[in-house]
Amino acid sequence: MHALSPFLHPHSVVFVGATEKEGSVGRAIVENLLDFKGKLFLINPKRKEVLGHPCLNSILEMDQNVDLAILAIKADLVPQAITELGKKGVKSAIIISAGFKEMGPTGLELETRVLALAKNYGLRIIGPNCLGVMSPYSNLNATFAKNRAFAGGVAFISQSGAICTSMLDYANDMGIGFSAFISVGSMSDLEFKDCIEYLANDPKTHTIFLYMETIGDAKEFIRICRHTALKKPIVAINPGKSKAARRAAASHTGSLVCSDTAVEAIFEKGLVLRAETMEEFFDLFSYYALEATPKGDRIGIITNAGGMGVLTTDAIELNGAKALPPVDVLGDATEKAYKKAWEELKDTDAIDALLIIGSPQSMTDFVKIAEVVQQIKGKIPVVASFVGQKQTLEGVRFLKKHRIPHFPTPDRGAKILAKIIGHEKRREKAHNTLSLMGEKLAKEIPLPFTGTRTLLTEYESKELLERAGLPVVKTMLAKTALEAQEMAEEIGFPCVVKLNSTTITHKSDMGGVLLNLKNKQEVLMAFLEIQNKIKEGFEGVTVQKMFNLKGGVELLFGMIRDPMVGPLVTFGSGGIALELYKDVVFAIPPLSPEEALELFKKTKIDRALDGYRNLGPVNKKKLAEFFSLFSLFIASQPDIVELDINPLIANQKEFLILDARIVLKTDLTLNK
Amino acid sequence: MHALSPFLHPHSVVFVGATEKEGSVGRAIVENLLDFKGKLFLINPKRKEVLGHPCLNSILEMDQNVDLAILAIKADLVPQAITELGKKGVKSAIIISAGFKEMGPTGLELETRVLALAKNYGLRIIGPNCLGVMSPYSNLNATFAKNRAFAGGVAFISQSGAICTSMLDYANDMGIGFSAFISVGSMSDLEFKDCIEYLANDPKTHTIFLYMETIGDAKEFIRICRHTALKKPIVAINPGKSKAARRAAASHTGSLVCSDTAVEAIFEKGLVLRAETMEEFFDLFSYYALEATPKGDRIGIITNAGGMGVLTTDAIELNGAKALPPVDVLGDATEKAYKKAWEELKDTDAIDALLIIGSPQSMTDFVKIAEVVQQIKGKIPVVASFVGQKQTLEGVRFLKKHRIPHFPTPDRGAKILAKIIGHEKRREKAHNTLSLMGEKLAKEIPLPFTGTRTLLTEYESKELLERAGLPVVKTMLAKTALEAQEMAEEIGFPCVVKLNSTTITHKSDMGGVLLNLKNKQEVLMAFLEIQNKIKEGFEGVTVQKMFNLKGGVELLFGMIRDPMVGPLVTFGSGGIALELYKDVVFAIPPLSPEEALELFKKTKIDRALDGYRNLGPVNKKKLAEFFSLFSLFIASQPDIVELDINPLIANQKEFLILDARIVLKTDLTLNK
Repeated sequence: MHALSPFLHPHSVVFVGATEKEGSVGRAIVENLLDFKGKLFLINPKRKEVLGHPCLNSILEMDQNVDLAILAIKADLVPQAITELGKKGVKSAIIISAGFKEMGPTGLELETRVLALAKNYGLRIIGPNCLGVMSPYSNLNATFAKNRAFAGGVAFISQSGAICTSMLDYANDMGIGFSAFISVGSMSDLEFKDCIEYLANDPKTHTIFLYMETIGDAKEFIRICRHTALKKPIVAINPGKSKAARRAAASHTGSLVCSDTAVEAIFEKGLVLRAETMEEFFDLFSYYALEATPKGDRIGIITNAGGMGVLTTDAIELNGAKALPPVDVLGDATEKAYKKAWEELKDTDAIDALLIIGSPQSMTDFVKIAEVVQQIKGKIPVVASFVGQKQTLEGVRFLKKHRIPHFPTPDRGAKILAKIIGHEKRREKAHNTLSLMGEKLAKEIPLPFTGTRTLLTEYESKELLERAGLPVVKTMLAKTALEAQEMAEEIGFPCVVKLNSTTITHKSDMGGVLLNLKNKQEVLMAFLEIQNKIKEGFEGVTVQKMFNLKGGVELLFGMIRDPMVGPLVTFGSGGIALELYKDVVFAIPPLSPEEALELFKKTKIDRALDGYRNLGPVNKKKLAEFFSLFSLFIASQPDIVELDINPLIANQKEFLILDARIVLKTDLTLNK
Repeated sequence: MHALSPFLHPHSVVFVGATEKEGSVGRAIVENLLDFKGKLFLINPKRKEVLGHPCLNSILEMDQNVDLAILAIKADLVPQAITELGKKGVKSAIIISAGFKEMGPTGLELETRVLALAKNYGLRIIGPNCLGVMSPYSNLNATFAKNRAFAGGVAFISQSGAICTSMLDYANDMGIGFSAFISVGSMSDLEFKDCIEYLANDPKTHTIFLYMETIGDAKEFIRICRHTALKKPIVAINPGKSKAARRAAASHTGSLVCSDTAVEAIFEKGLVLRAETMEEFFDLFSYYALEATPKGDRIGIITNAGGMGVLTTDAIELNGAKALPPVDVLGDATEKAYKKAWEELKDTDAIDALLIIGSPQSMTDFVKIAEVVQQIKGKIPVVASFVGQKQTLEGVRFLKKHRIPHFPTPDRGAKILAKIIGHEKRREKAHNTLSLMGEKLAKEIPLPFTGTRTLLTEYESKELLERAGLPVVKTMLAKTALEAQEMAEEIGFPCVVKLNSTTITHKSDMGGVLLNLKNKQEVLMAFLEIQNKIKEGFEGVTVQKMFNLKGGVELLFGMIRDPMVGPLVTFGSGGIALELYKDVVFAIPPLSPEEALELFKKTKIDRALDGYRNLGPVNKKKLAEFFSLFSLFIASQPDIVELDINPLIANQKEFLILDARIVLKTDLTLNK
């Protein structure tokens, strides 16, 4: 049985903190729990009954096994309650109470104590600091919300209780029901990933919506979302694009908050559709709850307002779907004109979804137009936008009654349709090509040196990458001038001689790089020059072939380590363009070659790979294989915190890493 | 008197097309006109009276001067009516009737005929194909809309009648009134610019809103908007970012439609705030109509929902304003907590606007919170967002009644506040620095050749730019090898030798460019090599100094000619980055140096100008002066259709144009 199961479908429930006090959380919860059809215990040491329901003095007095406990007592009383619940064999508890880690160090200590006690008894926790859980199919409302959720097909999981109540008010107004409604609060134990894992296999749940401020266990979150998203869409909102918002979230949740780069990469990898605004979140919610997803990307428009047809066309195209030329039924159109337009569009068979727009003009009867929309519903995904207030009111009411998504402005509806189409394409593609790769990680390759440094030399970095199977330019390490000359001869001219040093990090700035050496004599001079210039830290030179950068595209393969998420790989424009144009994208390793190709497409340099100016196209498939290999290597190297391959030269013939830089963890014991 | 004046404030009106027919446009107009307090004539050849008002058989029967005519008759009857109105000395007519250029060539011909007749009589026209005009302060409703506009401070001008009726329904619901409400239709005569020019000096109008699909006379539009925007904000929506939308707009209006690049440049130059969506347009409308603009960019947030505070912070920061840390009054907050939070914020004196958020929780009384918001109104610009449906309804109603802007989601309100703050900053800045420059155009410089070509040679292009005062690298034209050698010596080594030809356009591809020549001997060889390779079209070579591109930043100065708007200048990354990163911005010339500096800021290469890698900062002020000069030159050259200066090298010491390409009009008589 999944850990979430008793939270959503308990047979018996105990509520610790029952009270009749007007306006209290405890009373609100009792009122909500009275509808529960299973066995209900109420606990209050001072009362014999609460709101007509008998009340026990202590948890220990319960005379049967209980599936789920709900706690709404002062934070400092929670440890004892958990101990008693544990003793009575209760395995699941929702802690509504606040006063834990969001209050600072003392609260964190209390939370840690509660968790340790619970773990001891094998007791799982939702919360603390949450609104509670509603499970409409089990008549369970274990929250202190005023409203309750209807039964339906959407699961909602939220880290903010306040957003829960707004969502509920909104959903009730729209007549949208829920399969599960979970306020996860501080996520001290059970978190998003656990809820999603359960809901993935819940037949009542057809879509999952998440309000997140922190991700929790990112690796598991991704793994579970990827599996789940193949079966049902997951939509999430996660603020924190700006630093100020991340600060606010950290202070609000008492948790560390991911960088937005990491969040983007996590959602991308987890096949999660990200809502950019609260409104978009509500809009995606009402669309997914009310209407089927389109089978293709061609959206038809019928409008009595030409201008709005134009606006809508823009919104569709800018969000990646295809707008059919709007059918303008003109300002004096009645519902008959709308119907006729639909009949004609339908017959073209070139339409996957329909958006119907009405502005209040002299002949416009919105209820009658809404009736036409209702007739279309079921034949094709359809949404409406009646643009007005008083004059459109009755029409909008009719639409709502018949569960037709309505948007107050048409371009807003168009954007939602287009976004959903894009996401469904992505899910479908994932279905066909998804390779999780998670298990077949490359074997960790031992670091190519012993010591206490954190920065590898260029030579060591390249050696490590070469062992990982990546195409590194031949680079040789010469201790003497004679060796350098011999190596240069072996490699061929023109060549490059660079300082080798484990202590000097900026060899270029020190004059430690000499380019375009044409013969043995020049190599000798270069060796001596560098040796002469660098008194301290000279440990020979490396010799490598000279490449003309104009003969290829300069790429970046890179990696950073996010404190919350772990490694992120980067791909983009290398060379000096990197700093200026920041044409780089991030992803969570490992990636399959297909995923690497998709990642490439998000960069501007991708165009150059298809052939650019005098350069022919490069073998992108091969490049994607290299990037996939690189991502596997990264995923298997816990000790690398930063890595830059810049540039990797790509041309029609080959790929070659010309320079690389690897930084290791500072706390690493390097004498492996 | 301004041409618009009789349309908005006539003393007497004639309506041609009066009828009692149920549901007809003619009847709706009569009904609306009956409220007019001045003299009203109705014309219908078949009736003695309409809706109780006497009716004349013919325009010619009118016994007094009339200020304004309204026509709602069949298109083919319009020419005769215009003639008769002209004869009776009427100088202003609104043509409601459709059936002109939007119907294709025959309609266009009819429209041209009507215009010619009107011009003959000095009669000005609004329309055809429009909803009409409302002027609430004159009790004039010359439209066939069901609703009428209240008197207020917003002027609305729209090219779409349907958007007028939606706007009106929306405004009436919000209790927002208008100083003028003009449906300009096809804009055959009077257009946006004329309306704006009038409204600029109308004391009743405090903000101007435009729904546009075509701009009309772009140059005049810009000039008038710039002057007007110094006094009052102008907000516009103009769809057409996507090609599909521009096609739809062209078919809808029967007019050519500007490229979005041109529209952006026009709005930027005209200080017009662009709404990106219909919703944003409505939101800006309600904000500007209901609330004062903030004096600074620091936005405070009070919320009972921490998560929404985070979302809102993001929206503020991502739209360019500053979010103060949200004050979280927590879920159980009553209105007292909101009030206390405001008292504390107020005292910090570090706040320019306030956003108040409420989610429906157990203790939340939205009407009482709305009362707190009402108490704050007037002290500081304030907006609210009560996030819900049924539970928030009464609170939202209270806000509406007290003219407090409300947004259903808080991040939506935050975006609007931030956008308005940004726009007001821009307007204020323009106030301080605006230099119109329009009059002091550079004198047109004669083209440096005679002939029938459209493409100037590099030498000719550079010569023209040098005469315009721009910093061109010294480039000399040599007919013989000896001349080339002498010139190279004068210029200094290393140098570059390039083919000079009036017929060969791609000299690089033909091997016509030889770089890095180190002495006279190499120059001789280069001359001979080019002469030998290029049998046909060889007209000597140019000699110029060789520059190492790594010694500076490569910039682009460019120009394209938009068919609707005329010249647009471009600035951005030059060299090979141009194609790949498209780091270029467009503007309408001429620009002052201050405006040039602002334009630079929109590019990524701007960062490099402040110092980059080994390069020190360039003299940006001087560069801006050059760009301003360049823009003046462009504005004065009607015969140039395309111009690329790429690269212009910028470094700490100097600016130098290394290459340039100029294309002239094909229909140019070049034998000047």
